[in-house]
Amino acid sequence: MPKVSLTKISEILGMSKSTVSKALNNYADVSPITRKKVQDLANELNYKPNIFAQNLRSQESNIIGLIVPEIVHYFFSTIISGVLKTAENFGYSVIVVQSNDDYKGEVKQLKLLLDKNVDGILLSLADNTIHFSHIKDLVKESMPFVLYDKISKLIDCNKVVIDDVKAAQMATQHLIDIGCKKIALIRNHLKSQTTIDRHKGYKKALLENGLVYNKSIDFEGPDFSFKTGKIAGIKICESHKEVDGIFAVTDLMAIGALEALKEHNVAVPEQVSVIGFSNWFMSQITTPHLSTVDQPGLEIGQTAFKLLYQEIQNKKNNIKEPSKTVVIPTTVISRESTK
Amino acid sequence: MPKVSLTKISEILGMSKSTVSKALNNYADVSPITRKKVQDLANELNYKPNIFAQNLRSQESNIIGLIVPEIVHYFFSTIISGVLKTAENFGYSVIVVQSNDDYKGEVKQLKLLLDKNVDGILLSLADNTIHFSHIKDLVKESMPFVLYDKISKLIDCNKVVIDDVKAAQMATQHLIDIGCKKIALIRNHLKSQTTIDRHKGYKKALLENGLVYNKSIDFEGPDFSFKTGKIAGIKICESHKEVDGIFAVTDLMAIGALEALKEHNVAVPEQVSVIGFSNWFMSQITTPHLSTVDQPGLEIGQTAFKLLYQEIQNKKNNIKEPSKTVVIPTTVISRESTK
Repeated sequence: MPKVSLTKISEILGMSKSTVSKALNNYADVSPITRKKVQDLANELNYKPNIFAQNLRSQESNIIGLIVPEIVHYFFSTIISGVLKTAENFGYSVIVVQSNDDYKGEVKQLKLLLDKNVDGILLSLADNTIHFSHIKDLVKESMPFVLYDKISKLIDCNKVVIDDVKAAQMATQHLIDIGCKKIALIRNHLKSQTTIDRHKGYKKALLENGLVYNKSIDFEGPDFSFKTGKIAGIKICESHKEVDGIFAVTDLMAIGALEALKEHNVAVPEQVSVIGFSNWFMSQITTPHLSTVDQPGLEIGQTAFKLLYQEIQNKKNNIKEPSKTVVIPTTVISRESTK
Repeated sequence: MPKVSLTKISEILGMSKSTVSKALNNYADVSPITRKKVQDLANELNYKPNIFAQNLRSQESNIIGLIVPEIVHYFFSTIISGVLKTAENFGYSVIVVQSNDDYKGEVKQLKLLLDKNVDGILLSLADNTIHFSHIKDLVKESMPFVLYDKISKLIDCNKVVIDDVKAAQMATQHLIDIGCKKIALIRNHLKSQTTIDRHKGYKKALLENGLVYNKSIDFEGPDFSFKTGKIAGIKICESHKEVDGIFAVTDLMAIGALEALKEHNVAVPEQVSVIGFSNWFMSQITTPHLSTVDQPGLEIGQTAFKLLYQEIQNKKNNIKEPSKTVVIPTTVISRESTK
């Protein structure tokens, strides 16, 4: 079925194209009779307006860009889901891209999104992004822009985060409350803000409870993976039998540690208690079920979109507002691994 | 920084807009000197072409739509990842939407994507989609369109699938090969093609090995969930002690069954062997590690995009090709739960 054009309708009715266009858009300077005539024929012929022409007029695409570090990642899936649901309610579509948690990927994806003339961008920083000129340029050009989850304090824009210091402190406090005295930390390097903050929270809890921070049981790996958690778990089993509690900064690392403990016949939670971070779905189905910190991705995604939408509206209306940071609350979920 | 327009460049250089446009697009009827003059100034002023105007001329958006039943779902995450990677290589962006595995959601999302003038659409059918007029209309209007994973044989279009009958037969055969004689099936209702086919494969394996199909150990639940798997597992423990093998049509159901067996102190694999389907990441970290069928989502996503891209090219060149179905091979992965 060929597409019906505005020209076709104007020819059939013997009206000018501008009259037809005005009638379709309900302009007041077209009589109700003409309007009805045009709209009836448009319906009958299944006329669809040319969205490209509309975009050209409005200079808006009603599309936003969402950059995630990784697609195959439970937590980011929940964020994507939150963004999509909210965007849809506001009439926006979402182009999703991944940076592969890499600075160069992030710069490239940002450029691709700008080439698509998106109305705004949501970004969670790649783990190795430590220069921000690609983002500062955006903000300077007044592109609506919100950072979520992995952010930098060096960028002046709206942000949605959790309080990682507080959340990590709560997780460590949970281990202390159930009697742990020698608490190991499993984490990645101290480059990303997330890890810096969780490390801080861990040390803060120790300090506030009169426990000594011991560098030899603060295990640093190259990433957040199962394998990194397992390697640290093996070291604990083999060389740090004094450890009675483990806080891993991701569930995946905690589950890796659980596997190491199981292979070394260390009973969880009887000999060692373990707590993770994020509340990934799989933490509910490990043996034993993993205690963790709930990091509400859906809510982070919803809030990030709403902030972006507000920025888009402000830009249209030439309103400038100071940047704000919304902190989404987290909770400790106690399961079998720390009872 | 305000946007620099083509008009601005033409004013500064005292040339017509059409000359400037031709120079920027490397047309041969503009002298090399003029071309260089225009392009140098454009670079200097950081001129960006108006993508909306370009889209209007080409009637192409270089954006495709990807409809997935669920975002927070490991298998679909791997498909999204495969589509994004391949699309990017071909210069396309991807609007991702979810149908919530629901017919009405699917119809709505399809309409929204059409309103965005995407160049093509990739769709995995919702579980309860049994009418297809919304899709047949698309295909009739020559919208490039590919079905992946959950498809219907009633729609004439390009498809990417796995051979569910064969894969389920292989999974059941694996249980038979290790000595199982009373093999239970855990599945959802027989409405989706996926379940129909896996059910068929299960029965085929029994038949070919001279084992009797027994309706009382063919467990049907309302969905593919952990809970549905667990409920079936409990029934097996309580009323079907003869069962020595379980094939669940998703990993999630298999893991639910594992939990029921553990709670009833039934040893896996000593008393009952369990195999799932999909090779979700978490199947590697359950206790015991779950045997399963690998369903390569990344490859499904990559192949689906490539088929769609070919359709988009064919449409431009007015080429018609008969529809084809690409079958991606699957393999049985043997882990602790069936050793």
